[in-house]
Amino acid sequence: MEGNPVHRVSAGDAWSSSMHPDIESERHSQSFNVEELTNILDGGAQNTALRRKVEVFLEIWASRYITSSRKPSGAWAQRSRLQSGTHSAASSRSWGHTPRQNWGTVSRGCCMQRTGTYLQGLETEATYDAATQEFVVHSPTMTAIKWWPGDLGRSATHALVQAQLICSGARQGMHAFIVPIRSLDDHSPLPGITIGDIGPKMDFEHTDNGFLKLDHVRIPRENMLNRFAQVLPDGTYVKLGVPKSNYLSMVVVRVDILLGEVLPLLQKACTIAVRYAVIRRQSRLRPSDPEAKVLDYQTQQQKLFPPLAMAYAFHFVANNLLEFFHHSYSFILDGDFALLPELHALSAGLKAMLSDFCTQGVEQCRRACGGHGYSKLSGLPSLLTRVTASCTYEGENTVLYLQTARFLIKSYLNTQKSPGSASKGSLPQSVAYLTAPDLARCPAQTAADFLQPELYTTAWAHVAVRLIKDSVHHLQTLRQAGADEHDAWNQTTVIHVQATKAHLYYVTVKIFTEALEKLESQPAIHQVLKRLSDLYALHGILTNAGDFLHDGFLSGAQIDMARKAYLDLLPFIRKDAILLTDAFDFTDQCLNSALGCYDGHAYERLFQWAQKSPTNTEGNPAYEKYIRPLLQGRRARL
Amino acid sequence: MEGNPVHRVSAGDAWSSSMHPDIESERHSQSFNVEELTNILDGGAQNTALRRKVEVFLEIWASRYITSSRKPSGAWAQRSRLQSGTHSAASSRSWGHTPRQNWGTVSRGCCMQRTGTYLQGLETEATYDAATQEFVVHSPTMTAIKWWPGDLGRSATHALVQAQLICSGARQGMHAFIVPIRSLDDHSPLPGITIGDIGPKMDFEHTDNGFLKLDHVRIPRENMLNRFAQVLPDGTYVKLGVPKSNYLSMVVVRVDILLGEVLPLLQKACTIAVRYAVIRRQSRLRPSDPEAKVLDYQTQQQKLFPPLAMAYAFHFVANNLLEFFHHSYSFILDGDFALLPELHALSAGLKAMLSDFCTQGVEQCRRACGGHGYSKLSGLPSLLTRVTASCTYEGENTVLYLQTARFLIKSYLNTQKSPGSASKGSLPQSVAYLTAPDLARCPAQTAADFLQPELYTTAWAHVAVRLIKDSVHHLQTLRQAGADEHDAWNQTTVIHVQATKAHLYYVTVKIFTEALEKLESQPAIHQVLKRLSDLYALHGILTNAGDFLHDGFLSGAQIDMARKAYLDLLPFIRKDAILLTDAFDFTDQCLNSALGCYDGHAYERLFQWAQKSPTNTEGNPAYEKYIRPLLQGRRARL
Repeated sequence: MEGNPVHRVSAGDAWSSSMHPDIESERHSQSFNVEELTNILDGGAQNTALRRKVEVFLEIWASRYITSSRKPSGAWAQRSRLQSGTHSAASSRSWGHTPRQNWGTVSRGCCMQRTGTYLQGLETEATYDAATQEFVVHSPTMTAIKWWPGDLGRSATHALVQAQLICSGARQGMHAFIVPIRSLDDHSPLPGITIGDIGPKMDFEHTDNGFLKLDHVRIPRENMLNRFAQVLPDGTYVKLGVPKSNYLSMVVVRVDILLGEVLPLLQKACTIAVRYAVIRRQSRLRPSDPEAKVLDYQTQQQKLFPPLAMAYAFHFVANNLLEFFHHSYSFILDGDFALLPELHALSAGLKAMLSDFCTQGVEQCRRACGGHGYSKLSGLPSLLTRVTASCTYEGENTVLYLQTARFLIKSYLNTQKSPGSASKGSLPQSVAYLTAPDLARCPAQTAADFLQPELYTTAWAHVAVRLIKDSVHHLQTLRQAGADEHDAWNQTTVIHVQATKAHLYYVTVKIFTEALEKLESQPAIHQVLKRLSDLYALHGILTNAGDFLHDGFLSGAQIDMARKAYLDLLPFIRKDAILLTDAFDFTDQCLNSALGCYDGHAYERLFQWAQKSPTNTEGNPAYEKYIRPLLQGRRARL
Repeated sequence: MEGNPVHRVSAGDAWSSSMHPDIESERHSQSFNVEELTNILDGGAQNTALRRKVEVFLEIWASRYITSSRKPSGAWAQRSRLQSGTHSAASSRSWGHTPRQNWGTVSRGCCMQRTGTYLQGLETEATYDAATQEFVVHSPTMTAIKWWPGDLGRSATHALVQAQLICSGARQGMHAFIVPIRSLDDHSPLPGITIGDIGPKMDFEHTDNGFLKLDHVRIPRENMLNRFAQVLPDGTYVKLGVPKSNYLSMVVVRVDILLGEVLPLLQKACTIAVRYAVIRRQSRLRPSDPEAKVLDYQTQQQKLFPPLAMAYAFHFVANNLLEFFHHSYSFILDGDFALLPELHALSAGLKAMLSDFCTQGVEQCRRACGGHGYSKLSGLPSLLTRVTASCTYEGENTVLYLQTARFLIKSYLNTQKSPGSASKGSLPQSVAYLTAPDLARCPAQTAADFLQPELYTTAWAHVAVRLIKDSVHHLQTLRQAGADEHDAWNQTTVIHVQATKAHLYYVTVKIFTEALEKLESQPAIHQVLKRLSDLYALHGILTNAGDFLHDGFLSGAQIDMARKAYLDLLPFIRKDAILLTDAFDFTDQCLNSALGCYDGHAYERLFQWAQKSPTNTEGNPAYEKYIRPLLQGRRARL
């Protein structure tokens, strides 16, 4: 059933048997094969087939388990495995010969939630008691209570808690512990555990949100995850890796967030908003014409196509990061941590950048749907409130940008050491451009020149290098003027963030263009994706024009050329817009949007869904019906 | 009790008797008198006193009426009066000798909702039936159903509906009609009315949201609002003004939205986020120091102070617009509509700009509070979801920018007519700068030069003029190349929006600096507000640096000076930040935020409020208890 969209359509809806003519006409003549593009996103046709099977299974399962209860995802298994060294059958399978594809496939398409039971309590302590061979886990102050979007509030029975380890009086840094929090008999909180829902949140449709306070809770020694460190029965602390090992769990969580949560939210928002924009008609372009599809307005294209281009760009970026993680991880397992600083800096920065841009993009898609984008029935408000949370959790974005900034400063200073210096090593790959030959002026002479990937990648490299140099210069000037290290750092952080953002934009442009080089054997798809790559790079240049004009690298006339190139791309992307969102291959169930269904019957669904006006049920009915029997059944088997 | 903050503090909270030391220290030495600044915002000390009295009254009243039921605001009365020509005692009072102050005062501070029962159904028709002297109001298609944040869904008994008037077969354009929608006996929908809640919305804490479908509903002839047009019993349509009169109701609604809804939302968000940022401590600036207040971090200042500067800038901008409205309205009542095009263009553009910027600002404040900004208990999510709605209602912002763009194009073309041409009139005040003398280069030589209001206002004027010229040039080039008028317009809309935004930024900078000139007799307050004005202008220049560098008006070196001037302002504003938010004079009840209370006890409130975990009540309990007795009592008296 290649290219057959039947499996994408809502089952049981009266309208699904017919297509809205305004969306049907968009699919009439296809400049590329949608199924082939879907296969590329999935990493192969077999993976597309597998993903669809998993989705069907999950949708059946989800419909039986209702919502707001914990759904499994690869994340927990991966994180646990990283630190504990144990492999579950499931995680081994998805970590096997084609790890990227399988992992990416299952994460990309399906509607699962992040598990989110990974708690970082910076003030939480785990003190080892050799007498009983237990850890005493304790949150000493109010602020140590963790507020986390997850399943803690009403469903979870165990929590993975990050706490400061104290052995024989010495503080050994953050480690992870499995803490039982609820009785497996009656689901009540265990002694010493204060737990509950944090109250009303901005929005997490399908998760609950918990707070957790630990009052001298005792857990067995075995509950510390011990891939990189362990505590012996007598309290001796044994390192099994370098102190940096802890970074690894952060890295994998970030990659997980980007591929499994953040990126699909943007892709869904684009799908909904673009589909709605071809069936929504408003005003007339010409008095004699019928009302125009809103997607035919340049301003609407300007709202929707940059996010659409990002949805593709970030697919390749996040997968590239995952590949780099696997590459580094194989070295790390052999005890070689040389790649870890770069991996950490890249994952921190890209998590910040992608979550920022995806949030802006989802909000832009939401607003582009006018008043209906404000209705939860559009699906867009819940996409927005979920994606905006990703700017804060697993590292607040400003903090993350500054972590990347420190890596950039260090890398740049490394390039300044005298050529003979022994410590001057080769630069990590993502910052190798700091020493590449640079032009003082961009050679572009026409708008068409701005469609050369080499040209715009070089332009981004130039700007990033200049801003990194400038930020280091500011730091050094303040130090030389007598400011202490911390003041000098604090007074230049805004500048460092700006430089880091330029670096990250360069990295993403480069990854996207390199990914496209591999698709040259599929010219139709290459062509349509190259337009998105061009748009992505140019949109960034125009939005940050000042950085390119500042030292005369681009002239005002060249900015005008770039703008012309950018605006001229819009009508081309317009023609393929529906197909580009179809290729994300979301089922109607997964989109859960009255506006964005495959068949285009937005107004009928809006009206019907509004009539149903869903109630918000209190409590967690799923517990009595499903979780409790499940848990009791498992205990009986033990 | 001048300067005494007692009336701002939550009554009955155990903590309110003590101040958190971290917020108390911020109020120790005051560089200006907070009460005086509050009086300036209110338009005089008497108005501050009046507003506080009204707030106390409303808070007592609101606590009795619960939430989610309609609260009165000036907006309904004003709009009705505009079109109907009838004056209620209440609206006359607030429209009297000191209209700006009283109106602004009551709207600014209190916690009331917009009424939002003003429905614009572009496809809704009102056909006059002379036989019965009734209008037949009908929504012919599904899309004519109006979705509107208001009180329609569960509370309202009448709706103000905009519909296409048809008299004796002729379409006369949009007019307003009062349509009874619910029985005054039992609150059930009247015949022909399909009404209800639209289902889950992104968030309107205190309002319900309705949809309305009208199936040949008959209303008496008197229910058409008739200040500017009426229908005689035989169906003759009589105009009482020019066709433009309809713009007036849009204008007043926009001013109302800005002063009564949008701006207070930003001011509240700033208050909450700045207060939280002085009691929240995180990391150390120096290893030997205690953890620093997050407001001491440059990146946090960069997040919070531009929105704070906007909160002040837009206060003066919105009041200036209101003044201009009153000025124009007095002419209009005398039949002189000359100022209407400018008034319309300004109100459209400023509504778009201010709602866009306030939305960005509120979101920035929310994110600056980290994970707690995601909790509804912070008050920030509901501020965000309300302010973001204002980008869509009463004119979608892109549509509004383009309306202003058309006015700018017309004004610019007017400057190009030959000097002797009879039709070349003097330019409206807000675009007079199109013909003012212009410099090719900015004369700034130091960072300090960028703190001259004359210098940065001129810079903004230069950029706005260049972009307007450029957009007209693009339009004309396409026309000369053979594009038809509508294609040429559509293909340049992105450029027109860009030019319009620059124009509006110029207007707001100019208004803010002029407002400050009037405060020179209060030097301490003048100084602190001038820093905000400087920050506002420079933040805009740095964010749009490309527009200033494009033609060499600013050099790269000058941009660096502007950035230095900008960054150097941050620590000065830092010292006054708490006082600047105190001056908004919001009560704790009105802020409704666990993070943002006057006494600074954020964590205690968060913990206590979370324990209470409010339930979302279904239905509208207020109706049975309050609305029904009220309505029946009123009927009995008739």
